[in-house]
Amino acid sequence: MTSDPFFHPVSGFDLPRFAGVPSFMRLPHLPPEHSRRSEVDIGLVGVPWDSGTTNRPGPRHGPRQLRDASTMIRAQHGVSGLRPFEMVNCADLGDVGPNPADIQDSLDRITAYYDDLVQAGITPLTAGGDHLTSLPVLRALARNGPLGMVLFDSHTDLFHSYFGGTMYTHGTPFRRAVEEGLLDPKRVVQIGIRGTTYDSEDRDFAASVGIRVIPIEEFHARGPGDVMAEARQIVGAAPTYLSYDIDFVDPAFAPGTGTPELGGPNSYQALQVVRELQGVNLVGADMVEVSPPFDMSGNTAFLAVSIMFEMLCIMAAQRAKG
Amino acid sequence: MTSDPFFHPVSGFDLPRFAGVPSFMRLPHLPPEHSRRSEVDIGLVGVPWDSGTTNRPGPRHGPRQLRDASTMIRAQHGVSGLRPFEMVNCADLGDVGPNPADIQDSLDRITAYYDDLVQAGITPLTAGGDHLTSLPVLRALARNGPLGMVLFDSHTDLFHSYFGGTMYTHGTPFRRAVEEGLLDPKRVVQIGIRGTTYDSEDRDFAASVGIRVIPIEEFHARGPGDVMAEARQIVGAAPTYLSYDIDFVDPAFAPGTGTPELGGPNSYQALQVVRELQGVNLVGADMVEVSPPFDMSGNTAFLAVSIMFEMLCIMAAQRAKG
Amino acid sequence: MTSDPFFHPVSGFDLPRFAGVPSFMRLPHLPPEHSRRSEVDIGLVGVPWDSGTTNRPGPRHGPRQLRDASTMIRAQHGVSGLRPFEMVNCADLGDVGPNPADIQDSLDRITAYYDDLVQAGITPLTAGGDHLTSLPVLRALARNGPLGMVLFDSHTDLFHSYFGGTMYTHGTPFRRAVEEGLLDPKRVVQIGIRGTTYDSEDRDFAASVGIRVIPIEEFHARGPGDVMAEARQIVGAAPTYLSYDIDFVDPAFAPGTGTPELGGPNSYQALQVVRELQGVNLVGADMVEVSPPFDMSGNTAFLAVSIMFEMLCIMAAQRAKG
Amino acid sequence: MTSDPFFHPVSGFDLPRFAGVPSFMRLPHLPPEHSRRSEVDIGLVGVPWDSGTTNRPGPRHGPRQLRDASTMIRAQHGVSGLRPFEMVNCADLGDVGPNPADIQDSLDRITAYYDDLVQAGITPLTAGGDHLTSLPVLRALARNGPLGMVLFDSHTDLFHSYFGGTMYTHGTPFRRAVEEGLLDPKRVVQIGIRGTTYDSEDRDFAASVGIRVIPIEEFHARGPGDVMAEARQIVGAAPTYLSYDIDFVDPAFAPGTGTPELGGPNSYQALQVVRELQGVNLVGADMVEVSPPFDMSGNTAFLAVSIMFEMLCIMAAQRAKG
Amino acid sequence: MTSDPFFHPVSGFDLPRFAGVPSFMRLPHLPPEHSRRSEVDIGLVGVPWDSGTTNRPGPRHGPRQLRDASTMIRAQHGVSGLRPFEMVNCADLGDVGPNPADIQDSLDRITAYYDDLVQAGITPLTAGGDHLTSLPVLRALARNGPLGMVLFDSHTDLFHSYFGGTMYTHGTPFRRAVEEGLLDPKRVVQIGIRGTTYDSEDRDFAASVGIRVIPIEEFHARGPGDVMAEARQIVGAAPTYLSYDIDFVDPAFAPGTGTPELGGPNSYQALQVVRELQGVNLVGADMVEVSPPFDMSGNTAFLAVSIMFEMLCIMAAQRAKG
Amino acid sequence: MTSDPFFHPVSGFDLPRFAGVPSFMRLPHLPPEHSRRSEVDIGLVGVPWDSGTTNRPGPRHGPRQLRDASTMIRAQHGVSGLRPFEMVNCADLGDVGPNPADIQDSLDRITAYYDDLVQAGITPLTAGGDHLTSLPVLRALARNGPLGMVLFDSHTDLFHSYFGGTMYTHGTPFRRAVEEGLLDPKRVVQIGIRGTTYDSEDRDFAASVGIRVIPIEEFHARGPGDVMAEARQIVGAAPTYLSYDIDFVDPAFAPGTGTPELGGPNSYQALQVVRELQGVNLVGADMVEVSPPFDMSGNTAFLAVSIMFEMLCIMAAQRAKG
Repeated sequence: MTSDPFFHPVSGFDLPRFAGVPSFMRLPHLPPEHSRRSEVDIGLVGVPWDSGTTNRPGPRHGPRQLRDASTMIRAQHGVSGLRPFEMVNCADLGDVGPNPADIQDSLDRITAYYDDLVQAGITPLTAGGDHLTSLPVLRALARNGPLGMVLFDSHTDLFHSYFGGTMYTHGTPFRRAVEEGLLDPKRVVQIGIRGTTYDSEDRDFAASVGIRVIPIEEFHARGPGDVMAEARQIVGAAPTYLSYDIDFVDPAFAPGTGTPELGGPNSYQALQVVRELQGVNLVGADMVEVSPPFDMSGNTAFLAVSIMFEMLCIMAAQRAKG
Repeated sequence: MTSDPFFHPVSGFDLPRFAGVPSFMRLPHLPPEHSRRSEVDIGLVGVPWDSGTTNRPGPRHGPRQLRDASTMIRAQHGVSGLRPFEMVNCADLGDVGPNPADIQDSLDRITAYYDDLVQAGITPLTAGGDHLTSLPVLRALARNGPLGMVLFDSHTDLFHSYFGGTMYTHGTPFRRAVEEGLLDPKRVVQIGIRGTTYDSEDRDFAASVGIRVIPIEEFHARGPGDVMAEARQIVGAAPTYLSYDIDFVDPAFAPGTGTPELGGPNSYQALQVVRELQGVNLVGADMVEVSPPFDMSGNTAFLAVSIMFEMLCIMAAQRAKG
Repeated sequence: MTSDPFFHPVSGFDLPRFAGVPSFMRLPHLPPEHSRRSEVDIGLVGVPWDSGTTNRPGPRHGPRQLRDASTMIRAQHGVSGLRPFEMVNCADLGDVGPNPADIQDSLDRITAYYDDLVQAGITPLTAGGDHLTSLPVLRALARNGPLGMVLFDSHTDLFHSYFGGTMYTHGTPFRRAVEEGLLDPKRVVQIGIRGTTYDSEDRDFAASVGIRVIPIEEFHARGPGDVMAEARQIVGAAPTYLSYDIDFVDPAFAPGTGTPELGGPNSYQALQVVRELQGVNLVGADMVEVSPPFDMSGNTAFLAVSIMFEMLCIMAAQRAKG
Repeated sequence: MTSDPFFHPVSGFDLPRFAGVPSFMRLPHLPPEHSRRSEVDIGLVGVPWDSGTTNRPGPRHGPRQLRDASTMIRAQHGVSGLRPFEMVNCADLGDVGPNPADIQDSLDRITAYYDDLVQAGITPLTAGGDHLTSLPVLRALARNGPLGMVLFDSHTDLFHSYFGGTMYTHGTPFRRAVEEGLLDPKRVVQIGIRGTTYDSEDRDFAASVGIRVIPIEEFHARGPGDVMAEARQIVGAAPTYLSYDIDFVDPAFAPGTGTPELGGPNSYQALQVVRELQGVNLVGADMVEVSPPFDMSGNTAFLAVSIMFEMLCIMAAQRAKG
Repeated sequence: MTSDPFFHPVSGFDLPRFAGVPSFMRLPHLPPEHSRRSEVDIGLVGVPWDSGTTNRPGPRHGPRQLRDASTMIRAQHGVSGLRPFEMVNCADLGDVGPNPADIQDSLDRITAYYDDLVQAGITPLTAGGDHLTSLPVLRALARNGPLGMVLFDSHTDLFHSYFGGTMYTHGTPFRRAVEEGLLDPKRVVQIGIRGTTYDSEDRDFAASVGIRVIPIEEFHARGPGDVMAEARQIVGAAPTYLSYDIDFVDPAFAPGTGTPELGGPNSYQALQVVRELQGVNLVGADMVEVSPPFDMSGNTAFLAVSIMFEMLCIMAAQRAKG
Repeated sequence: MTSDPFFHPVSGFDLPRFAGVPSFMRLPHLPPEHSRRSEVDIGLVGVPWDSGTTNRPGPRHGPRQLRDASTMIRAQHGVSGLRPFEMVNCADLGDVGPNPADIQDSLDRITAYYDDLVQAGITPLTAGGDHLTSLPVLRALARNGPLGMVLFDSHTDLFHSYFGGTMYTHGTPFRRAVEEGLLDPKRVVQIGIRGTTYDSEDRDFAASVGIRVIPIEEFHARGPGDVMAEARQIVGAAPTYLSYDIDFVDPAFAPGTGTPELGGPNSYQALQVVRELQGVNLVGADMVEVSPPFDMSGNTAFLAVSIMFEMLCIMAAQRAKG
């Protein structure tokens, strides 16, 4: 399976990387009405939304900065030599338009948008947005049954509610997803959890439904290779979602996020953990919580899109086989 | 009328300005349960909230940065020689706790908080928050009838709705306030309006109800003195609210805001326009749309609190007269 | 004359301004191979290039940042009420691809690109790039005879050469343009010139060929209205080019540039001077020397695109008249 | 032993973390005259002072920024599950007011303040200030005999004098402390020392009095666990002071300091080394040299307060036992 | 009188402005031991010192940043056409080495250094340093009797003492200077005074000794030309010192300073007021309170050195006549 | 062999590090015409040039920022105790003046400058500049035959050409150097290579001529000690050049560069790899690609000069033996 040259990104040898309208990874931009959208295998989608944020806002600006930073991504993976854009048809599908002043309206708009992608057979690679973004995406992707999930994060996002009963925030999406039957908790692994906590309510819930939580101390003690072997075993061969909160990474490497926690992995490990998912049956993936107003050097966005390229390589290899 | 020394701010000669827990203008901090709260004449209140923001977020961080910057304010007005903290009892009343993930809940919390202030006879000086903040405050202050209003802003904030019917955003508060009978449109003047627009729907509404809009071109042509004379005439002697969106000021002087517009007044004029309100019957005032993530030098916050000190001098003089 | 709705920008009421792939002013992006490019009346073009820069580099990053900032521009002019996007077909034509390591190659590429635009009857509105950008653009636009020019700048850019004989830098474009017969010096006016100088060689040249230089002292003394009346008289009714170096504006309002000079106009005047060109026969215009690495707040880019909108309004009104 | 609810911090579930007057860890603020101050077990104190700084200044702004960052600290330790605020009475005691233009006066003011704390039975946890801060604190804490000390730092701060005989700078506090009998050099360990040096005068002094210096090369070779086991042995069971200069940490993780040195520990190790002091008899601790003007992301302050929380957990466990 | 070519600055046409070791205005660097120091007419001297600062520190870093920014200054004045470096011998004399941890020692070192300059017949142009710098300089310059002074500042710096009796801070230098007979108060004018105040003690002192204080309101009302005419009359033809605190300028134009006050002059006026001193008998001048840690764009330093170039032109013209 | 005290750097104990005109490591500044230049053993030279940069520019500002940061370097190596400035005569030789608008002219100027150094027997330690800088330096140093080279970098810089045939960019210097016989490919080792790639053309070339490429994965797996032992073996005892691109280091530790790649070494390893070159026969070394506009904290420059000090220690030990 090879891709149509129409879907190849612009090369930096032809047009310098600082030039041109910045689409994701310099891919063609295919808005909903575009005639060739039905040919897309993997669609990169922005969800510029942060209404679920309980502390420092900003991820609504994430997709645009991620597009800008993504112009640094070249055609070939540095280690595997894979050239994903030549294996399957990739495209920038544009952004889902959220309603910044209405959470329920936004949840509905996002799910509707992803329902269309699922119907068109497009595997979505999402650039958030805060972590509440994962919930409406999962609602579309799990129409045929609960999914497994690998979560890289410093928080479980499994809380029941905030501020006296508010159910939809960026601290609750996976509680809702389990309650709604979108995730199979036995096939969910959360990696990198750390930081001070209010209490253990989230961890107690995880334990009660069978979600595997790997705190950062265990991650550092065992090493990424060993931890990811367990993760692969947990999710198995069934359909799986990959969710990556950039605050998984240590804030020295990824300062541009709203709720950083200290003591996380470095940038080498941040890439490595995704590489270790080679072969996992990914039906979708997201990169969330990149907050440009707190990313003065732009390095957070560059790391985040580099991780997205790792995700894309795995998804492309799988679809090419498929 | 003189104030109780308990309500005097800490002097920078006694404790350097960079020292100490930062309350507004180094005043005593009196949370709701404080025993001496009933003695307060003018209460400085923070509303850390930006859920109505349709573009760049951040004003939720405003009150804290404004407190920090306010430690630079000294005891005496540089021109009039007024010493407001010695005239009436001033205090930092803390922040209203909003619900960052629920607009209606937040609107209700804010109004309830201000209802208490009104009942206690405290004149509120508010540090927002985005401009939607003014609406729930006005709901409490206008219990006895519609108020006049002087608005400094580059936008009218008179739109009907956003994003296909969303009624509560920072672009709609005064449309709602007029509809709800909180403002007497004939006694409302809006100063500094400018920038590109979607259409003229807001201006048409203003014209239809009798709100006086003074665009920035007229402001620059006539000068602050002449414009403010007209403003005083419009609001007259009846109870009046003062609302100051920091984006009234040119972004070179106040970059830390979410929706800047070019060609505004400089910092001298920004202070002067408030001084010109001496004698107006202010029942409350707010400073909104200060967005710390976009205020790298901190100068926006310093300007904003300096303007708040101008407001305070007017309110203190008025309350001292009784 | 009205525009085809295909060429209308996306509204912020439909899709928030922070969402979507950022084209200039949210217009459709029509790369060279696009089928509807021939219908374009006014084309916005980026020239991401700074090889002529003799001091601080960065304008190669200008077009991308200008696109980002331009998403804040709305449909209607705030003062005149003009809606340019509905008057003529406007589009983002993408960037000319320069060769960052070869000046002569880049000069040729740019001229070739603009030759095509001229042939297609498209009036170009250029986002640079450093000021050397104007030279290859003029080479294409002046094929039928020398043009008049209004230049807003703090430097004359009329030097003979730099560094012992280097003829093509951002300090020499208009010397070359006069020598090559692209500009009619009698119809050239340079406004805002200031700062320390090496010597008077540039001014002597201006005087010798009849270029009118209005230093900033004269600008402040006479006021923008009077100065621009003279400028209109100088260029007259014949075809004229408008070149705007952002360092014309005071660095407090436009810090993001490589060679700032102090004491310039404020942001209100920066817009006003272009408005005063209403009716001038503009065959092209550029905004140059915006340097994102030195524009930490992003306000320089926002000012620059706001000025570009003023230019666009003049060009649209003229083309609509036909 | 459990704490009085009066001394519990505000929860982020009740009031968002960005709201409210920022006291240390959202604890009640008890200035010297407060009626309940005598009930405090562990007091967090700011010393906003940098008159001993020989290179880049700024730590005078440390306590305020540390308070702001500390609002991110939650109730429970992520690994041990300890809830220190519920074990003993903790409070923010405000700042010691230094004299920024008189070193001797400031030294005296600080010692007098801490004498009062000692008399009141309060264990102090200090937020500096530059490293000279430790000296006047030690003068109060060592009234009953010399203390042991664990120092995390990249410098020994054991120099005799600077600039031709100046005895009180941030490079000399522990030389003075040994000379004055405040520290028992045999029970002092300095960890992380590195960087270029003027000479070996400080190391020679350390060797001559029996201070154990562990350079960063040894730290990296042996690992934090092994090094801290030795540290615990050196200080033993007798009263010990803990001093933490944030420049111990690598500047990628803690850029906001005046004299950074390269090659230090990462943020995980920065926390871990304090955790390893569990059981040590701490009579006081400080976090010094946080310099907000050089901490553009705010991550340095967040790391520093997170380390302070680690200190607090150890001190609370000990007092709760005590 | 013309200068020796040895004392000419490097041209940007020969060596780009970003190249080379940065001395003031690219002049030759003549440290104290240099053989040709005795030939210098005007000496540029750095005093990197901020021990008198009562709020935000940083001016100790001023001279180095001012040297860096000064490489943008070219050979010729843009308006007058004066070429000062060709009129008299100018040089960068390096920095006075202060003792950052001992105020009295520093005061003595500075005066000793300037005593040598006076003896060598060198007119000093000083780059501070905070405003306390002016005092030890005046002690050297006023050996033959009290001087007149033009002060541009937003503060009078005439306070008696700070923090309960501290006599030497950046808020007291001119009180000391009058007390010590270094200034003739009848020949002192202070321009631009503004901002909130502790009290009127400084103004009362000014009035009692005959110092003329021109507040910013008067400055804006009368205009720079009229105000400076009065200033020239006040200082007359006798020896006069010029002191320029960069916080005279509005913080939008000069954010990099420790105690900004709002509503000041713009950059054009900031230069103009010095130009208006043409003909005044200047025996020395200083530029103080430039604080690089708060000058993120570097524009403050660029403005400050541009003002120093204006000072230099006046001093050169006078010495050339002399 | 000991050095002449004339060549000793200024001590921070005598003059604070923030004071004085900033030469490299506070060494005497000896421009080409200086009388004692012939006595120099190791010369630090700036090459402020970035015309070969294909993405984000800025290294032209490198030498000046590196000089500023280098004032933090003290006299003695922290681990070895070596005092290089007392072993051989070191000096700051100033900058080579490039032509920012002419690549060929600049290449020639640089080679001519280094030819003079070679003739004078000075070992050059260069501060770039982008990586194209290495080529003209090698042309001078390899006059007597090809050199070995140790390269620390995340890119091979071995590409044939860019943008359709442009031969001289910062991605091609070592391809040219091999073609021109300046490097013996069998004695070249490249360490740290990583990131996405356009294709494998550079690696294929390396393989074809025998250059050893050690990708970052191998570096992390084997550790710095093992890798550097191989590197020493590859270059052997013959004359060798050391080239260090700061993007070798992870961008969390060195953000200030134009083409960062993720997953690199930390700052401890960044220093360590140079220490491991002790005994290698270095005839020259460079530090390139430091880009101040992207180095907001200044930590990149501080790391870069600290690495330069490591280089200097090796070169000094060798010359002292020699």
